[in-house]
Amino acid sequence: MVNLEGKDILDGAQFSREEIDFTMSVADDFRKQLKERPAIDLLKGNIMASLFFEPSTRTRLSFETAMHRLGGNVVGFSSAESTSTAKGETLVDTIRTVDQYADVIAMRHPQIGSAKEAAAVAKAPVLNGGDGAGQHPTQALLDLYTIKSERGHVDGTTIVLCGDLKNGRTVHAGVEIYKHYNCKLIMVAPEQLKMPADILAKLRDHGVAFEETTDLEAALAKGDVLYMTRIQKERFTDPAEYERLKGSYILTREMVERIQPKLTIMHPLPRVNEITTDVDSLTNAAYFRQVGNGVFVRMALIASVLGKV
Amino acid sequence: MVNLEGKDILDGAQFSREEIDFTMSVADDFRKQLKERPAIDLLKGNIMASLFFEPSTRTRLSFETAMHRLGGNVVGFSSAESTSTAKGETLVDTIRTVDQYADVIAMRHPQIGSAKEAAAVAKAPVLNGGDGAGQHPTQALLDLYTIKSERGHVDGTTIVLCGDLKNGRTVHAGVEIYKHYNCKLIMVAPEQLKMPADILAKLRDHGVAFEETTDLEAALAKGDVLYMTRIQKERFTDPAEYERLKGSYILTREMVERIQPKLTIMHPLPRVNEITTDVDSLTNAAYFRQVGNGVFVRMALIASVLGKV
Amino acid sequence: MVNLEGKDILDGAQFSREEIDFTMSVADDFRKQLKERPAIDLLKGNIMASLFFEPSTRTRLSFETAMHRLGGNVVGFSSAESTSTAKGETLVDTIRTVDQYADVIAMRHPQIGSAKEAAAVAKAPVLNGGDGAGQHPTQALLDLYTIKSERGHVDGTTIVLCGDLKNGRTVHAGVEIYKHYNCKLIMVAPEQLKMPADILAKLRDHGVAFEETTDLEAALAKGDVLYMTRIQKERFTDPAEYERLKGSYILTREMVERIQPKLTIMHPLPRVNEITTDVDSLTNAAYFRQVGNGVFVRMALIASVLGKV
Repeated sequence: MVNLEGKDILDGAQFSREEIDFTMSVADDFRKQLKERPAIDLLKGNIMASLFFEPSTRTRLSFETAMHRLGGNVVGFSSAESTSTAKGETLVDTIRTVDQYADVIAMRHPQIGSAKEAAAVAKAPVLNGGDGAGQHPTQALLDLYTIKSERGHVDGTTIVLCGDLKNGRTVHAGVEIYKHYNCKLIMVAPEQLKMPADILAKLRDHGVAFEETTDLEAALAKGDVLYMTRIQKERFTDPAEYERLKGSYILTREMVERIQPKLTIMHPLPRVNEITTDVDSLTNAAYFRQVGNGVFVRMALIASVLGKV
Repeated sequence: MVNLEGKDILDGAQFSREEIDFTMSVADDFRKQLKERPAIDLLKGNIMASLFFEPSTRTRLSFETAMHRLGGNVVGFSSAESTSTAKGETLVDTIRTVDQYADVIAMRHPQIGSAKEAAAVAKAPVLNGGDGAGQHPTQALLDLYTIKSERGHVDGTTIVLCGDLKNGRTVHAGVEIYKHYNCKLIMVAPEQLKMPADILAKLRDHGVAFEETTDLEAALAKGDVLYMTRIQKERFTDPAEYERLKGSYILTREMVERIQPKLTIMHPLPRVNEITTDVDSLTNAAYFRQVGNGVFVRMALIASVLGKV
Repeated sequence: MVNLEGKDILDGAQFSREEIDFTMSVADDFRKQLKERPAIDLLKGNIMASLFFEPSTRTRLSFETAMHRLGGNVVGFSSAESTSTAKGETLVDTIRTVDQYADVIAMRHPQIGSAKEAAAVAKAPVLNGGDGAGQHPTQALLDLYTIKSERGHVDGTTIVLCGDLKNGRTVHAGVEIYKHYNCKLIMVAPEQLKMPADILAKLRDHGVAFEETTDLEAALAKGDVLYMTRIQKERFTDPAEYERLKGSYILTREMVERIQPKLTIMHPLPRVNEITTDVDSLTNAAYFRQVGNGVFVRMALIASVLGKV
């Protein structure tokens, strides 16, 4: 029996296949319930702290929407400027404070390892909504949910991961999830932004089939799913290198129609120019549905760690 | 039968007389219900996205209060800095994202036409809370509601519009509403800030009686209602011109008592110095009641576009 | 019979002993109720305006948590930048606006006297969450609640107040509360940051026993409770003076164990370096429990001023 009560959600590596499947099925169930009515009363009176030390529209509003759809309330902040960090408070002290208020904590912080640090002192379960270039496990789970939902299954799928695979926390968390499934990964990145060696080593250990290339078109010819990512300006210390690399890979409608018309197209968003807007109206452009799936998956995680499913 | 379900509220021009009257009557009904209890359970579980790309205390909190008084919840942001706009995301992508979360979207954005652009891609109804120097239809409706509420009727009223009529979106949206009523408009503005010619042309087409002047005192002598507006610093590219014009018109208590003691005094707020504070205690100083009316009118609009009235 | 309905909570001096004891007992009652369920439906549909013109994690989230735990809703802002203050609006106009929306107002503002100014124009009760270097009465009450809760009683206790006693609004509000109890105060501060003479005069008037010293260790030897405060950088006009004074008093675990092992250790937080982190794991380190007590005390105050207890 899967039981996530009291657990922190810190990285993709923490999950067993059973826990992932369980989360997918809870998310599915919430999705069905929300078709009947706007919200569920499961977490009435509960409070989620939404602590975003770094700007985010998508992830923050997704967590907060999930909490409201479960009948709960939210307190929090959307940037570090309006917090006591400006007065010199440490992350640990901030978390210990908020831990006195909330039943569950969702957080994003620019530092790798910050969510783990928070979880070590908080009694409330901590959900990592992104720790710098580290992990982003709720994104990885919603990505998996999207693949299942769009294609009916994950096993047997060839997934093309493209963009900044060095700094992209969504793909780092993602491969930790995909490794449980019988799928193949094709990694497309410029030389400077390749997937880190330690993650590749883990994939080898798990017997996950993967290949690396710099050629997006060749990868698409073999792929079922494209997971495109943004070259993240905020991860570069050298602006010139960002300028050199930002246009490396751009998916156009013409490419999809010519190479792989049935390609499921995903993106964690925001996009800058990696997918041209003429792709948006393709029925297999899944990235905005993917955003919506985030609410169901986060509902599943919040309710699970609070022991309500 | 008036039915606003699924409609966007984008500008003053979109409304028929019947729709306006309907909205006024729904607002009135909510006002009465709120006298009995603090909130109504009509929108329990529903979520409004409150997207303020530009700072606003009044309009944002008014929309959010309206949603809470209807039993609903709110997610959103109060400035563009804490959004993905900073990462290069387009307005359209942000809206498509939020559209996955919310049942209704209230927004303010510095660009003219932004609300319309948002409405074109959102499934959820969009309520324009101000698009730069463009429109501000919910303000126009609450202004009308205030005139009705303060004077008992709109037909037959002479309304003096004073201040920055060139950039003032509240007066632009307002004249589109007033044109449905048998009222007379007197427009008082410095030469550089006169009402745009295209709006005057529309008024002529609709047979609305109006006159233009630079003399506030002469206008007050003939007016029933003064709608004073702020010279908006943020609409000027030349700070020197703002400095020259900002003190053009200032209403004092002495002027009201001498010229038109029964004048209904309105202002969309914030004010800087256009109405001296000794006016505040006059019983016909309606501007803070006007703020309160905003909640009832926005409740009416939110509930209407969600098909709940 | 104590009745706080409609009252503003502006400073520590306003309270009678009966009102303080009543608030403590209501807070205690809410604490017990929250052990059974996450929230109480007492303020369903009510709205609190949370107006933080100055950054604050702790106090803002504490007020908002309190409101949610009572079943109510919150509108507001967490910094002055996203308000109409930037457009030149006065505090009084902002408050009169918000007064149209909310049933109760919690606010923090950098100016001494701002909460009083707000209360003078608002129909809704105003709760002062800190007015510059002025007062912070809800903090003072939660501090008292913590002493009672940690030690069982306040009478007979020797309380050491340490740090910036000149600018520290929590200690200013605190002494106004402690004066009702038969406790002794020992004030430890560098010469430049001593408790203001007018407050000392009041203590003498009330017959409160106190002494002043610059020697923390000597004070601890006689104390039951240490109330440590931060040297507040934001209150200094001269950065050099801040640098000179900031390390004046630092409590270490070694000091506690050597001088007064049963010392109850409190701090309004955030701390910078005044209490070393090795103190945190002592069972009598009460500062994070103190944060939690803030929610119960603020629940008591909000419910009381709204006439719901």
